[in-house]
Parts: sequence; C-alpha cells; structure tokens
Amino acid sequence: MNTIKNRVHEILDGYDTSNITIATLCSHTSLQIFHGAKKEGFRTLGIALREPPKFYDAFPLAKPDEFLCLDDYSDIKNKLDELVEKNTIIIPHGSFVEYVGPKDFKSLKIPTFGNRSVLEWESDRSMERIWLEKAGLSMPKEIKNPKDIKMPVIVKYHGAKGGRGFFIAKDYHEFERGVDRRRKYSIQEYIMGTRYYIHYFYSPIKNDGYRLSKGSLQILGVDRRDEANIDEMYKLGSQKELKSYGIYPSFVVTGNVPVVLRESLLPKAFAMGEKVVESSWGIMGGLKGSFCLETVVTDKLEFRVFEISARIVAGTNVFVNASPYADYIEDGLSMGRRIAKEIKYAAETGQLKEIIS
Amino acid sequence: MNTIKNRVHEILDGYDTSNITIATLCSHTSLQIFHGAKKEGFRTLGIALREPPKFYDAFPLAKPDEFLCLDDYSDIKNKLDELVEKNTIIIPHGSFVEYVGPKDFKSLKIPTFGNRSVLEWESDRSMERIWLEKAGLSMPKEIKNPKDIKMPVIVKYHGAKGGRGFFIAKDYHEFERGVDRRRKYSIQEYIMGTRYYIHYFYSPIKNDGYRLSKGSLQILGVDRRDEANIDEMYKLGSQKELKSYGIYPSFVVTGNVPVVLRESLLPKAFAMGEKVVESSWGIMGGLKGSFCLETVVTDKLEFRVFEISARIVAGTNVFVNASPYADYIEDGLSMGRRIAKEIKYAAETGQLKEIIS
Amino acid sequence: MNTIKNRVHEILDGYDTSNITIATLCSHTSLQIFHGAKKEGFRTLGIALREPPKFYDAFPLAKPDEFLCLDDYSDIKNKLDELVEKNTIIIPHGSFVEYVGPKDFKSLKIPTFGNRSVLEWESDRSMERIWLEKAGLSMPKEIKNPKDIKMPVIVKYHGAKGGRGFFIAKDYHEFERGVDRRRKYSIQEYIMGTRYYIHYFYSPIKNDGYRLSKGSLQILGVDRRDEANIDEMYKLGSQKELKSYGIYPSFVVTGNVPVVLRESLLPKAFAMGEKVVESSWGIMGGLKGSFCLETVVTDKLEFRVFEISARIVAGTNVFVNASPYADYIEDGLSMGRRIAKEIKYAAETGQLKEIIS
Repeated sequence: MNTIKNRVHEILDGYDTSNITIATLCSHTSLQIFHGAKKEGFRTLGIALREPPKFYDAFPLAKPDEFLCLDDYSDIKNKLDELVEKNTIIIPHGSFVEYVGPKDFKSLKIPTFGNRSVLEWESDRSMERIWLEKAGLSMPKEIKNPKDIKMPVIVKYHGAKGGRGFFIAKDYHEFERGVDRRRKYSIQEYIMGTRYYIHYFYSPIKNDGYRLSKGSLQILGVDRRDEANIDEMYKLGSQKELKSYGIYPSFVVTGNVPVVLRESLLPKAFAMGEKVVESSWGIMGGLKGSFCLETVVTDKLEFRVFEISARIVAGTNVFVNASPYADYIEDGLSMGRRIAKEIKYAAETGQLKEIIS
Repeated sequence: MNTIKNRVHEILDGYDTSNITIATLCSHTSLQIFHGAKKEGFRTLGIALREPPKFYDAFPLAKPDEFLCLDDYSDIKNKLDELVEKNTIIIPHGSFVEYVGPKDFKSLKIPTFGNRSVLEWESDRSMERIWLEKAGLSMPKEIKNPKDIKMPVIVKYHGAKGGRGFFIAKDYHEFERGVDRRRKYSIQEYIMGTRYYIHYFYSPIKNDGYRLSKGSLQILGVDRRDEANIDEMYKLGSQKELKSYGIYPSFVVTGNVPVVLRESLLPKAFAMGEKVVESSWGIMGGLKGSFCLETVVTDKLEFRVFEISARIVAGTNVFVNASPYADYIEDGLSMGRRIAKEIKYAAETGQLKEIIS
Repeated sequence: MNTIKNRVHEILDGYDTSNITIATLCSHTSLQIFHGAKKEGFRTLGIALREPPKFYDAFPLAKPDEFLCLDDYSDIKNKLDELVEKNTIIIPHGSFVEYVGPKDFKSLKIPTFGNRSVLEWESDRSMERIWLEKAGLSMPKEIKNPKDIKMPVIVKYHGAKGGRGFFIAKDYHEFERGVDRRRKYSIQEYIMGTRYYIHYFYSPIKNDGYRLSKGSLQILGVDRRDEANIDEMYKLGSQKELKSYGIYPSFVVTGNVPVVLRESLLPKAFAMGEKVVESSWGIMGGLKGSFCLETVVTDKLEFRVFEISARIVAGTNVFVNASPYADYIEDGLSMGRRIAKEIKYAAETGQLKEIIS
C-alpha cells in the first residue's frame, strides 16, 4: 500500500491544484458528488460503461462536464494517464469499489479521496468486528457455532453489502435450512429496535466541528434503508404462513427514507463516531472523510452498531439541499458537497496529501 | 373529443396569454399548484364548494388570489364564461376529475392542462393494462379466473383510486369471502418488494431533460403512500389472528412519505417513463405534463408497474422547496411549479396548444 | 399560579426587551430552538449539566452563545437572578419539564414561553381527556374495567410520554399478564389506521394564519414517530411466536420520520386545532404557541386524537429549512424559528405578557 500511496503523492505533486477534476463512477451517489463538486467550482468527470448515461440530462445541476466511457470497469487502469492529465481526484463509493474490484481499486495509481487501507477493514466482517470492538462500540453478539442459536439471529454473507441472501433464523433448524455453506457467513444476534444509518464526515485538517484530538467530526444526516422484501412482506401474512408459498424474507436495499434521531441520542452518536475515528489511527492509518455507522436503537435507548461503511453511502441521497442536520451547519450542504469542500480547502491550504491516498 | 379540443383551442385563440389565470379545485395538490403558479407570476383561482376554504389563510404563499364558489361541482359547466373571461387554464388532479365526474370533465369547454383523452386509459384497469403492456413495462400478472388463485393476489376495484375495498387473497376461498361482486374488479398477482411512486414530468415542447424522440422527460421526486389500515395493523397481531375480531386489512391512502430510489435504478426508471410516453402517442395522442408510475421494486432489483396516474398525484405533496431529485434541476421546484413553468414557457413561445386540451 | 404569573410579569416589566436571551435545556428540540432564535437575532443560552455539550460544535448555526451549567437540573431555581439579568425567556420542551420536574417547573419565577397552566391538563390522562372531549374531538374509547376488554386496546401509563411500558392487549388475560399495577394506567381502544403527529402554532396576537375568534393558527409540519421495538419486530416473526422467546412489543420513541397528510384532511386538521385552542380559554386560560395533536387516521378518513402535547415536540425536528407545510408560509421556517418570531413580534409591539407566563 505504501508504495502506491507514495506514487499517488508523487502524482499529486505534479497536479495543478487550482484546476482539479472530481471524478466518480456513474452510479450510487454520483448525482450528489457531481452536484456538490460543481457548486464548489470543480470540473467533473463521470466514468461509465460504453456511453454516457442519459439520465444526467434530466438533472442538469448534477451532470458531469465530461464522461470517460469504458468497455469494462477494469479498463480504468489503462486510462490513468488521461485522468492524471486532468488533475483528477476520484471519489470512491460502494459501487465504485465493487465494479472496479477491491484488488484493482486498492492498487489504482490515481489520487483517491480518503484512505484506501480502510477498505479491507470494512469489507471483511471479522476485521470490521475487531475494529469496532477496539473502538468500544456495542455490537450484536456473534454466534460462532450455529448449534448455539437460541435466540433470533441474522445470518450475513461476507463482502455483499447489498444484503442479498441474508436471512433470519430462530434456531439451528432454521439456520440449516437457510444457509448457503459455499459462502463465508457470520451469525449475529438479531437486535430488536429501530434502525438509524448515521452519516458522518471526519476532517483531519479542519477544526470547525466536534473536536477530536486531531481534526473534527460532523453528522450531516440520518436515513433508514428500504429493504425488499422484508419491509412489506407482513402485509401478505405471517412469515410462517408465507413459507408454505415458498416466500422467504430477503434484505436487498432498494432505496432510503429520511429520519431524525431523538436529540438526546446525539451525544452518544458523536461519541461513537469519535471512537471509530480515533481507533482507526493505530489500526490502518486513519479513516478520513465520509463514513456511516449502521445502528439499531433499542427500547433502552442504547445504540448497537452492526456495520460500518468507511465511505459515502447511498443513504446520503435522501438530502441534497435540505437535511435536518446539515441545515445547522450551512445551507444546501449535501455529503457530496461536503467532500468537495474538503478537497477545495485542502488544495487551497496545501494539505491534499492529508486526505488523499 | 376532437370537437371539444377544437372548441378549446378556439377559446385559447381568444386568450390574453400574458394574463393567464391558473385554476384548480381546492383539494388534493392545490397548495403546490397555487404556490407554484404564484411563484411564476400567474393569477390564481380556487374552485370550492359554497365558501372559500379557510385553511388557505394559514398558507399565504399558496392561497389563490380569488375563489369561484359552487353549490355543486357539476355547476362548473355553468361558470365557463366567467373562467374564459379570466383567461383560465385548469390544472386537473385526481379529486378534480372525481368530483366533477369523468364525463363532465371530458366535455368541459375550457382550456385544461394536459391531454384529457388520457383519462379513460388510466381509469379503466383493462385499458391501462393494454397501454402499459404495449409500452413494454413489466406488470403484475392478471388472474382472469378466481379459481386459478394459487399465489397471493390483490383484488382491486375499477375506478376507485383511493384503494377502498381492495383486499389480499391467497386462495379461492379467501377471494370468495372478500369479493363484492357488484363492483367491477381485477385480480393481480401480489408482488413482493418495496413500493416507489415515481413522479415524472414530460414536456413535448422543451428539450432540457432526458431527451425523447420528441420533447423531454424529468423525474422530480419519489414517494411512498401511507395506507390505512394495512400499514400498521401488524402492530396488533397477525392478520389471521385479527380476523377473529372482524378486523381485515384495508388500503385507503391517508398520506405520503418521501423516499429515494437506489441510484442504479434511475436509468430503468427513465426508460420506463420514456416507453410510457412514446407508446401514448399512437394510442391516445400523447400523454403530457405530470404522470406517476406506481411501482414495486423486487429483491432482484426489478421494477413491476402496477398502475399509472396520468396527471399530478398527491405523492408530490412531500416536496415543495426541497426534493432530492428536483434539487438537481433547480432550487425550489415542486411539481406544481413545474406545471406553471411549462404553461409560462408555452405561452411565451406560442405553443399553448401543444400542452392544452 | 396567578401569583407566579404576576411575579413573572413584574420581572418582564424590568426586562430590556430589545435585548432578550432565549434559553432552553440542551436536549429534545434545542437545536432548532437555538437555530431559530439566532436567525431572528436573539442571544441564546443553553442549560446543561456540568459542562457544555460538545455536539453543538458540530452544528455552528445552532450552537447557543453561552451555557449555564448546573450540577443538577433542580439547581436552576438558584440561578434565576443570573437569567433575569440577561432578560431571559425560557422555551420549555418535554425534556425540560421532565428533567426540572413538573412541580419545580410550574413555580419557576422566570419568564417562560406559553401558558404553564396547560401542563397539568396535558400530563394527566384523565384531565387531558376532559379537555379534548370538551373540544369535541373524537378520541379512542376508554375502557374503565379491564374485564370489559373485548377488542384490541393499548394500555398506557400516566406521565411517561416516552411510551415505556405501554402494551397492547386483546383480552383480559393479556391485560393481566402485561399490567404493572403499581403505576397509574389507562386503557384505550386501539385505533386501526395510520398515525400523524400534527404540529400547530397558535398565536393570540397575530392574525396572519387561520383566523380564530382571537388570534390565528398555523400548521408547520407533520411527522410520524419511530418506536422501538414495535416498529420492526414483525421482521422477526409474529408477536405470538416471539413471546416464546420472551420478546414483547415496546413503544419507546427513538426518532421521527417526515410525512404529509392527504390534502383533503387539512380542513379537518385545522378545525381540530381551532377547537382545542378555543376550548382551552375557559379551561386553563388558553393554550399558546406550539402544540401537537397525536392522531390516527382511519380507513374512513376520520381522525382519532389519542393525545395532545401543549408545547414544542420532538417530531418538529424533521424539518428545519424545508417543510412541505411551512414552505407555504415562508422560507426556512422551523418550529423553533416560529417561536422566536412570535417573541420578537410580541417584544416589538409590547405584547410579551400575552404569550409569556
């Protein structure tokens, strides 16, 4: 990793930092990334397959200035000179990493927002747990041996962030019937409560938010994920009843709903974010920029964190010009725009290497 | 229809198009229609029963400049001279058509936004299905013979958009017990997934959105409907259990919640809108202005379209000054304001006949 | 109460009303209260335990200008001179009243927004019912004798607004198993439908909203509460099934979701607000400022009101700069800002005593 980081920083040294291009892959959170970058005065570039996606025409304020069209996302590694020439900084999002492939992504010799080393820690459920427990967060218990399932659990497969194939089991029998043993899985206690996906931004170079021992932290919004078909299957009858029709719950994210947290939970939410950031320094050289803690709040008003995403997540799409959190920071602040502001400030103050890897 | 259209266009020829009045019936989406029209500089008129509804006093930016009060909505046909004198263009919404009556509405000799011929295609479930299947959209299967019910289905009555009386059945027995045979019904496969009501605007005269072979398309927002009492009945117990108390699910729309779609679904959403518009040209002379596709997204991330509304729908009420879609088009763009902008542009460029019938 | 009111009005007479400080306790809805007050040009003060809560640093537009830190909230009564010196007006919210204690709160000799006498009417379920029935609102039926439970009911404890311990019972047996007889409870018919928490503002001194016989009424927003663990427990299985794991539904508010009401329900919503305000004049000298009706809309499109909160409630946190109701009044109008505007107007026109107790 360090050789790549060194190479990337060499590339950065050659950049005209008054003329940066912000690029990302045309999916996931690209609308707000381009919209925010344009508002901050950056040139923007969309990476797409074969031809420019037509739907940006319908959203002129979020349409990138130009497109780089590839036959296959893996071809991006052959286009780096072109991107470097344009002083490009890439904003990675979940689909970016998934489509380019985690391995290729990690070795891309092109300036990228955030710390790429974070990736392996968030994509492997065991490493993720080590990190979050080191941060002192309260997570759902892990059940090592399926025979120990005595309470409701959720079985999750590694890698897949989309939730495909996840299932709930209440005993060993249900586990056995549901599991696909060819995939790497983990068994988590199912936490009862309401889900909140909290969208943080950590800046190592600005001190205008919630102060950490270095840099500062913000919360820009909160959402809840829509999941097909678990969310609405109750309308049809009980899960027990539906099994006889071969209908089982699934957990595929299809969209997002805006929510706000009870205000008295905010101090706890910031404390969790703080611990995650500070623990990341020793583990992988520091989380930077956007991240999301995926939580359940129980009826004791306690947070349980079941996952971390160490980059911009799709739930931030619920707010563009108005978020009941970002509105207390400044008007019209989306997560995409916050990222653009960070790059702008770093460029202006000669600190790009602090936030780029 | 053509004679009415001709008469309406004659009336339009007599209008002072620099002094148009935007009118609608005081319900449904009237607040945003008046609010948007006022922002675009139009004079506004609210059609109400007996006396001006008091609640507009609480929303000064959405209060119409004047009211036309009727004893009965059907009296509107006796007030056309008055409306014509004020250069009135009517914005029809669901309640407008319902209260005035589809027949009366279709023959009203007054300029009306959009294409009135669309009405019969969207209000009859069989014609609607012909249209949407011709557009190549994937719809829930229709079950002709109730005895063929082998999987969960939803039984819907024709006409009623409100959802009153709809019910779910999982076999013939449940169908028999639930059905009201005096009403015209259709039996649809019940699609598992999450519901998204997508709010489109199609302009035949502007090319600043997603380009079609003529004109262009926008998506301004997405919502999900609240339905009493299906949405929250699970809190009380299973449907099976509740039947013993005589409690059955119902599907009456009481409100709406804002949502966003997974961004990777947007290209599909635009493609669906495009096909609906382009197929409408041959069928009924073209859908114009606002429409809504009522969809379910499955856990395969596929859309199923279960209904179309070919005019502004109440779900657009969730966004006025800030929508996570319209924010990428321009600030403060509600669906009501988009309609007003279309009329303004058409008036300025002499193209009113393209969007009025 | 009258002696306290007289003393408070004496204090007000000594205030420099061009230099008012708005204060509240640092929780609940404090962000929007401070944000709104700052926008209207007030000095702001946060009341906190021990030290200033760090999380305000992350929300600079909502950070109070100064803090008053106490070892215990009950110490506030020893700090009144300091507050009076700063021309302080206190905005009470649910947590304020709960933490300071209803008794202490009622006798605090410091100018407070709204009418403190309302408190005892909203915090005791029997008095609340007397008030709302006097106002002619339709409430869920009360069941006096648990043995008369024949339909689903919800059992609520007095005082606790958080919902802790509430439970559903469908017969006497379920009631017996669930009830904590040491606490004062009431048994309400469980109303099927969808819940809407309607946020009103009543001004006795301004006539720019929905006119009452004195003053005027606004609706600024609507939300729905998230409740752990009732909201999502269905994902795990039926309540019946979950009982065998010792899992029972609970109703603890953890956050809020924005919603809009079907527009045709608005006239009814205003009429309910009107009746609540006008009936309050004879009962306790008048409700003033923010209040919330907590309603269910049935599939007959009828409101049932199950509770009133006679002050700003946390559901208003869903909108700060953009609400699909407040947007029709003026841009960027949160409930916190509406309160600040009322105080500003009253100060400028010499009417503070009309809204302060």
